Amino acid sequence: MSRVGYLGPKGTFTEMAAEEYRGTVAEYIPYCDIKVLVKAVVDEKIDRAVVPIENSLQGAVTLTLDLLLKYDLKIVDEVIIPITHSLLAADVVTDLDDLDHVVSHPQALAQCRAFIDEHLNCNVHTADSTADAIKRVAKAGPNWAAIGNYHAADYYDLSVLRNDIQDNEENWTRFVVLAKEDSPQTGDDKTSIICSPRDDHPGALYEILKEFAQREINLTRIESRPARKMIGDYIFFIDFEGHRSEENIQLALSNVEEIVAWIKLLGSYPQAEIQAD
Amino acid sequence: MSRVGYLGPKGTFTEMAAEEYRGTVAEYIPYCDIKVLVKAVVDEKIDRAVVPIENSLQGAVTLTLDLLLKYDLKIVDEVIIPITHSLLAADVVTDLDDLDHVVSHPQALAQCRAFIDEHLNCNVHTADSTADAIKRVAKAGPNWAAIGNYHAADYYDLSVLRNDIQDNEENWTRFVVLAKEDSPQTGDDKTSIICSPRDDHPGALYEILKEFAQREINLTRIESRPARKMIGDYIFFIDFEGHRSEENIQLALSNVEEIVAWIKLLGSYPQAEIQAD
Repeated sequence: MSRVGYLGPKGTFTEMAAEEYRGTVAEYIPYCDIKVLVKAVVDEKIDRAVVPIENSLQGAVTLTLDLLLKYDLKIVDEVIIPITHSLLAADVVTDLDDLDHVVSHPQALAQCRAFIDEHLNCNVHTADSTADAIKRVAKAGPNWAAIGNYHAADYYDLSVLRNDIQDNEENWTRFVVLAKEDSPQTGDDKTSIICSPRDDHPGALYEILKEFAQREINLTRIESRPARKMIGDYIFFIDFEGHRSEENIQLALSNVEEIVAWIKLLGSYPQAEIQAD
Repeated sequence: MSRVGYLGPKGTFTEMAAEEYRGTVAEYIPYCDIKVLVKAVVDEKIDRAVVPIENSLQGAVTLTLDLLLKYDLKIVDEVIIPITHSLLAADVVTDLDDLDHVVSHPQALAQCRAFIDEHLNCNVHTADSTADAIKRVAKAGPNWAAIGNYHAADYYDLSVLRNDIQDNEENWTRFVVLAKEDSPQTGDDKTSIICSPRDDHPGALYEILKEFAQREINLTRIESRPARKMIGDYIFFIDFEGHRSEENIQLALSNVEEIVAWIKLLGSYPQAEIQAD
């Protein structure tokens, strides 16, 4: 039975992702700070942490990548959630024309631009997060609406006026579940590593990828991050299909180890499908 | 003589980057919306657009990558600017203890966490951008301060109380200058391409990188973006040393063209060094 922490507050997409985690859960605990959340696993205050790692529109969640680099934790599972936006207001509001103000995080506002322009004759306000916008609307008058997760309406006694108001339908976020030990082989697994080439010679990344290509190991993602020391000096986050206990994966990893400055195995875990709404 | 548009308002780091552009400039024009700015080059309302593409802490500016994908523009130059944060307040403020409120963009606040905790006994407020925070402080009472670019102080009649208040010193942003035609060879050039592998077979990226590695062409950056159609389907933004007019670059590019679904040449341009403060 796991104590599962997630990046809160309640009613966020990360809470939805935490609920999709395929382990046995004793308790879900929201944390408001991602660094405190991840540190809580390191310090064994909780058993699992659910954090966003990649969004199809915004790219990598760099803070999560930096925490994976810093702490010695493993990825035990992944969850992919489609991101949809809803318009939330007090129960008494039935007509969009009754609204004078709409509030949300700037990214959510940007993703609902067409809906706002076509359907809302409102002053537009920004909030620190969609959860913050929803909290503000719960306290404001009935002429206010928030754009956010429909899932949060219940927590704040609000109603959903419209669902799926985002412009672009290809919006999903991938979350990872972090723990002290990774997962056993299931037959449909993925493995994540971080590595840094030994020096900046031509073909450094090519030589790393060769070890996977020669063994027909399919890369599912590659992300580069500046190593912060100087421009042009990168570290690579690489995801590929297979489990670290498989022989061809072990061979590839031991050969990569020979040619890089350092490598960190983030763990093997069962692959996710996008969860339906 | 170029009309150079940049992502404004005045006093931002993008304005500083625009001023480092190594062409002859007739006029600098701030634009508040990056999409409108880039479209202005497409429509020939301006000759050059200066936009951020990558930050060492935040990663890629995904909106810029998406605009490079959408429009047929070329990169003609790049500028790298170290990002530093300053504390700005009205001229009459001399003591940090006189401050009751500090305001900035959430990312700037996060990057100055240690300074705020140690030196400011203030309510912390968020703004849409550091420029927005500075504008608010210019209108607010003398017990307010903004965290932002020292460069903006003059525009709003504010004083700089402290410089370099950021926690991490390795913070830089790379900007690119966009135009309708790219740059001639200088002998110290970089080339940027976008490409998409033909299908998701193992080694698709490896085969692309092989064309560069075999010719000792040094990759300076690789960034993957989801192709938005489905998860696991990526496009790659690749930067490498050399100019498109060099023979080995031409050979590499024509071989890459044979093995990818599509490729887009974003242009060749002189390499930048990090600009000193």
